[in-house]
Amino acid sequence: MKETQIKRASVPALESILGRVFPVLDHGHVRVIDYMGDDAAIVQAARVSYGAGTKQVHEDRGLIRYLLRNAHTTPFEMCMLKLHVRVPMDCWRQWIRHRTASVNEYSTRYSEAIADQQATLPGAWRLQAAQNKQGSEGFLEAAKGRELSAAEAGFHESARELYQSRLACGVAREQARKDLPLSTYTEAYWAIDLHNLLHFLQLRMDSHAQYEIRQFATLIGEEIVARWVPFVWEAFKDYRMNAMRLSGLETELMKVLINRDDAAAKAWLVERGWLNPQNGKKSREAQEVEAKLEALGLKFPA
Amino acid sequence: MKETQIKRASVPALESILGRVFPVLDHGHVRVIDYMGDDAAIVQAARVSYGAGTKQVHEDRGLIRYLLRNAHTTPFEMCMLKLHVRVPMDCWRQWIRHRTASVNEYSTRYSEAIADQQATLPGAWRLQAAQNKQGSEGFLEAAKGRELSAAEAGFHESARELYQSRLACGVAREQARKDLPLSTYTEAYWAIDLHNLLHFLQLRMDSHAQYEIRQFATLIGEEIVARWVPFVWEAFKDYRMNAMRLSGLETELMKVLINRDDAAAKAWLVERGWLNPQNGKKSREAQEVEAKLEALGLKFPA
Amino acid sequence: MKETQIKRASVPALESILGRVFPVLDHGHVRVIDYMGDDAAIVQAARVSYGAGTKQVHEDRGLIRYLLRNAHTTPFEMCMLKLHVRVPMDCWRQWIRHRTASVNEYSTRYSEAIADQQATLPGAWRLQAAQNKQGSEGFLEAAKGRELSAAEAGFHESARELYQSRLACGVAREQARKDLPLSTYTEAYWAIDLHNLLHFLQLRMDSHAQYEIRQFATLIGEEIVARWVPFVWEAFKDYRMNAMRLSGLETELMKVLINRDDAAAKAWLVERGWLNPQNGKKSREAQEVEAKLEALGLKFPA
Amino acid sequence: MKETQIKRASVPALESILGRVFPVLDHGHVRVIDYMGDDAAIVQAARVSYGAGTKQVHEDRGLIRYLLRNAHTTPFEMCMLKLHVRVPMDCWRQWIRHRTASVNEYSTRYSEAIADQQATLPGAWRLQAAQNKQGSEGFLEAAKGRELSAAEAGFHESARELYQSRLACGVAREQARKDLPLSTYTEAYWAIDLHNLLHFLQLRMDSHAQYEIRQFATLIGEEIVARWVPFVWEAFKDYRMNAMRLSGLETELMKVLINRDDAAAKAWLVERGWLNPQNGKKSREAQEVEAKLEALGLKFPA
Repeated sequence: MKETQIKRASVPALESILGRVFPVLDHGHVRVIDYMGDDAAIVQAARVSYGAGTKQVHEDRGLIRYLLRNAHTTPFEMCMLKLHVRVPMDCWRQWIRHRTASVNEYSTRYSEAIADQQATLPGAWRLQAAQNKQGSEGFLEAAKGRELSAAEAGFHESARELYQSRLACGVAREQARKDLPLSTYTEAYWAIDLHNLLHFLQLRMDSHAQYEIRQFATLIGEEIVARWVPFVWEAFKDYRMNAMRLSGLETELMKVLINRDDAAAKAWLVERGWLNPQNGKKSREAQEVEAKLEALGLKFPA
Repeated sequence: MKETQIKRASVPALESILGRVFPVLDHGHVRVIDYMGDDAAIVQAARVSYGAGTKQVHEDRGLIRYLLRNAHTTPFEMCMLKLHVRVPMDCWRQWIRHRTASVNEYSTRYSEAIADQQATLPGAWRLQAAQNKQGSEGFLEAAKGRELSAAEAGFHESARELYQSRLACGVAREQARKDLPLSTYTEAYWAIDLHNLLHFLQLRMDSHAQYEIRQFATLIGEEIVARWVPFVWEAFKDYRMNAMRLSGLETELMKVLINRDDAAAKAWLVERGWLNPQNGKKSREAQEVEAKLEALGLKFPA
Repeated sequence: MKETQIKRASVPALESILGRVFPVLDHGHVRVIDYMGDDAAIVQAARVSYGAGTKQVHEDRGLIRYLLRNAHTTPFEMCMLKLHVRVPMDCWRQWIRHRTASVNEYSTRYSEAIADQQATLPGAWRLQAAQNKQGSEGFLEAAKGRELSAAEAGFHESARELYQSRLACGVAREQARKDLPLSTYTEAYWAIDLHNLLHFLQLRMDSHAQYEIRQFATLIGEEIVARWVPFVWEAFKDYRMNAMRLSGLETELMKVLINRDDAAAKAWLVERGWLNPQNGKKSREAQEVEAKLEALGLKFPA
Repeated sequence: MKETQIKRASVPALESILGRVFPVLDHGHVRVIDYMGDDAAIVQAARVSYGAGTKQVHEDRGLIRYLLRNAHTTPFEMCMLKLHVRVPMDCWRQWIRHRTASVNEYSTRYSEAIADQQATLPGAWRLQAAQNKQGSEGFLEAAKGRELSAAEAGFHESARELYQSRLACGVAREQARKDLPLSTYTEAYWAIDLHNLLHFLQLRMDSHAQYEIRQFATLIGEEIVARWVPFVWEAFKDYRMNAMRLSGLETELMKVLINRDDAAAKAWLVERGWLNPQNGKKSREAQEVEAKLEALGLKFPA
C-alpha cells in the first residue's frame, strides 16, 4: 500500500457554525458540538479497500457518488457528527427509535424538567388525513384553532402547576414528572455516524414523516450535512431522496406501458388483482404505482 | 466434530405460561409471546467452540455457571425472548434506551391513544432522596398524599378531555396526542436475546432503578426467566445480582484492613483523599466502599 | 386493544427439515437448529402498531407485502433463525462482516483445526473479470486447471503436515494454526433476525457476490427461508431481489427516452458528462444505467 | 440549562502522534487517523443529564472516575477513535468479533494480497498450556524452534509462489487468495467509540488474551488512549483492569475467612462441592477463587 498523507480532517464550513444555535419549532434547536471526518475521509477509507493512494478532488466526487449509488455503506461510517438537540418529548419518542446512535439525554430524575412546552398556533392544527391513517392534511379553520390553542395554553399551565405542586411537597423528581405532557421539551447530546445519519434523514425528511421531526431532519440535512460533506449531500439527494424503487412487478408493467400497449397493461393489472375490471377499483399497490408512472411521464391505463 | 442430536428446544415450564397476562402496576402487564432456546441451547452453542458433543445435565449447569462467571457472553445470545408489554410512557422512556432489542410499539399516529393512565395511590407518593439526587426514599404523609392523588385524578380527566376534544374537531391523531401525560400507557412487542436481557435485568432490578421499571424487570426475571432458563437464572443471581466489584484501590485497602492494621488503613485513606483527617469527612468513593466492607464483615477505620 | 389469541408459532414445513444437513461446496453445510416466529408473527407485531386484531390469511399476505415494499422493517425483526454452518474461512471472512448477528464459532485455540480444506476442481478455476476489478468471469482452460488443482492438493497436504508437525512438538494450538490456509473449513452457530437475514441474502445472493458465499446464501434463501416464511420470501423476491432503483437523474433520462426523444436524451447525457460526444465513451454511471434501460425495453441513444 | 462554551475538542498530546506508525509484531502497525472528543467531552455529555454547566478540571476527573466506577457508560460513547491497523489475518479474526465498530478492510478481491506474512522467531514458539486448554505457557527449546522457523519460512515462500502462479494464469484474485496462510497481513481502517474501545482493551489486554492481539491492544491502550483521555485511562486501570469481581458465594466464603474461622470455611467449601474432603481436590470455581484470596492476603483453608 502506498503511504497516504495523514492530517486530521477539518471542515472550515462546518467549523464556522460550530456551536451556533439553529432554532427549530418554538423552543427547540439543533447545534453542532463536534464531528469527525469529511468527504475526503470517506474516500480515504474506501481506498484502503483498493490499496490505492489519494487521487484528485474530481475523482473523489465520482467515488463518493459510486459508493452511495451502489450501497457501499461502510466508508460512510468513518464520519461522525455530534449534535446538541432540544426537542419535544413527543418528537423525541420517534427520534430515539434510531438505535445506532449514542445518546445522553437530560435527566428529569436528576434535575427539574425543562419548563418549555411546544405550543400550537391557531392556524397550525392539522386535520386527520382521509386516506393515510397515520398522516395529516390541511388545517383546522381559524376560529376552531383559536379555541384549541387557548385550551392548550391553559392545559400547559395547569400541567406546570401540578408538577411544581408535587415538587413543593417534596415528591421525588422521578415521580413528580409522571404527568408531564409529551409536548414538554427535552435535550440530548446525539452522536451518529454518517451512514446511519443518512438513513435517519431519508426516513425523517420524507413527506410521510411527521411535521415536527421533519423540521429537525431537514435542518440537519440542509444546514449541517450540506456544509460538512457537500459531495455526500449532493449524491444523497440524487440517489436517495429523489430515487424511486421499482419492484419486479412494476418493471414488468412499465415495460408494457412504455411499449404503448395499454390493452396488454390493463390485462396485466386485472390478472394480478391490481385492477377490478367491474368497478375500476385499484388495489393499494396499484395506487402506489401511479406516482411512479407519472414521474416517468406514463399514465395508468384507464 | 461429533454429530449432536437436533431437536427444537422447548421448555414446558415456559410453555405453561405462554400468553398469560402478568399484571404490573395498575394497568400494565407482561406476557410471553414466544421464545427460542433454553439452558441446553446455550451449552450447545458454547460447545461448538470446543468441538465437543453433548454432556450430562450436571455438567451443563457447571458450564453455564462457568460461562456467566467469566463473561463468555456470546452463547447467551443464542436464546431469544419475545414479550408483549403494557407500560406507562414515562417508564417506556427508560426501557427503550436498551438499544439491542427489537421493538414494535403501539402507534398513536395510526390509532387512538390507550385511555389508561398510571394513577398514584395516596400512600405511594415518594419523597426526594436527600443524598441520591436521582432517587427517592420514604413516602409523603397520608393527608398530603390524598390531596396529590385527587389532583392527579382531575388532571388525568382533563388530559383525556383535551385529547378527545381535539379528535372531535378532526385534528390528526399525530398532533392531538402532543399533550398526553407521560403516565399514559403504551404497548409493545419486545424481543431481546438472553445476554442483553440479563444486562437489562441487572440494571433495572437494581435497587437504584426507578420503582416502576423495577416492578417490570423483577417480574420478568422471577416469573419468566426463572422458568425459562433455570440454570442461567441461578448463575445470574450468584455472579451478577449478588456480585461485588472491588477496584484495585479497594483491594489494596481491604488487604490492609484484613491484616487488622487500622492505623495503616487510615493513613492510606488520608493519603488518597478518601478521608479528611481534620473533620472525618469521607469522599464519595469512600462512602461507596463502606457497603462493601460491611458485606465482608470489615469496618471503616474510625 | 383487542385480545389476540396466543400460541407459540410453529412452522411444519420448517420443522420437517430441522437438523437436516444441506451440503454446500465440497465439505460445507447449512442446517437449521432453531427458529422463532413465522409469517403470522410479523403480522401480529405489525398490528400492535395499529391496535388491531388478527385478520384473514389473505390479508396477512397483503400486509407483509405492504410492509416489505415500504421498508417497515421492525416487524421482520420479530422472527429469528438459528443455523449451524460449515464454511471455508475465506468465505467466513465475508460472512462475519454482517455485524447484526450472534455467532459462536469453532475455536482453533481450544480444539484442533478441522482437517478439511475447500478444494477446487480442474474446471472450476475462474478468470479475473476484465471490467469488474473485484469479480470473475469464465473459466481457465482444462489443462491449466488440472495443473492448478494438482498444485493445490499438494499445498493442502503440506499445510496439514506443517500444522501437525507443530502440534507434535507441543506448540500451542493458538500458534500452530497461524499458517492454516484460508480454504480451511470452520463451523459456527449463527443466529440472526429476519430483517437482517434478508439484508444478508440481498447482498450475498446478488450476482456480484463471490461464488462461494452465493452458494450458501442461495441455499438459505431457497431451501430454508422459502419454507419458513413463504409470504415474506415471495415479497422479498418481488420487492428486493427483482427490484430496480432509479436515481433522480435516471428518472429524468428515462422520461425523455420514454417520450421517444433520442436527440434530447443524447444532449442530456452529454451535458452531464455521461457521454463523450467525440469518442462515444460512456461514464461509469452511464454504463450502469444501460441494464436498467434494457429491463424497461428502452435503448441507450446511439 | 446553562449555556456551555462550545469549541471543538482537540488533544495536543494525541495530535502530536497523529499518523505516526507504531510498529507491532514483525510487519504490523497501528496509527491514529482521527478522533472525536476528549476527557472534557465525556464530562460535557454527562452533565447534559444533570443540566449542569462546566466545572473545574479537578471535578472533571472525579466525575469521570465516578462514571466509570458505576457503569454509566453512555458518555464514553461520545468519543471516537479512528485507527489504521496492519494485522495478521489470524489476529484479525479475533479483532473483527468486536461488532460495535466500523471497519473498512483491504480487499484481496480488488487488489493483490499484501506480500507480508508474520514469521515466528526460533525462540518464540509457545508451548500448549497444560491447564488452560486455550492458552500457552513457556517456549519450545531452541533447536526445535530453529527447525520450525525454517519450515515456516519455506512454507511462506511456497504459499506466495502458489498465489503468484495462480495470478499468472489469470485466475481471479477472489479465488487465487483461497490458500493464503492466516499469517498473511491485512490492513483496515477501524473506528470505535471509547466505551466499546475500553471493552475491547479489557478483553484483549487481559493475560488470557492471545499474545499477538495483546500486543496490539496494549499499544493502543498505553500509547494512544493514555495520551488521548488521561483521566479515563487512569480510571480504567483502577476500576477495570485491576478490578476483581466477587460473586455472592465468594463474598460469603471470604467473610468467614476474614473472621479467621478456617474450620467453618472448610465446611462451607465441602458443603458446596468446591472441595473434596477425601482427596483435597478443588473444583474449577475453587481454583478461580484462590487468586482472589491471595490478592486480599487470605489463604485457602488447607
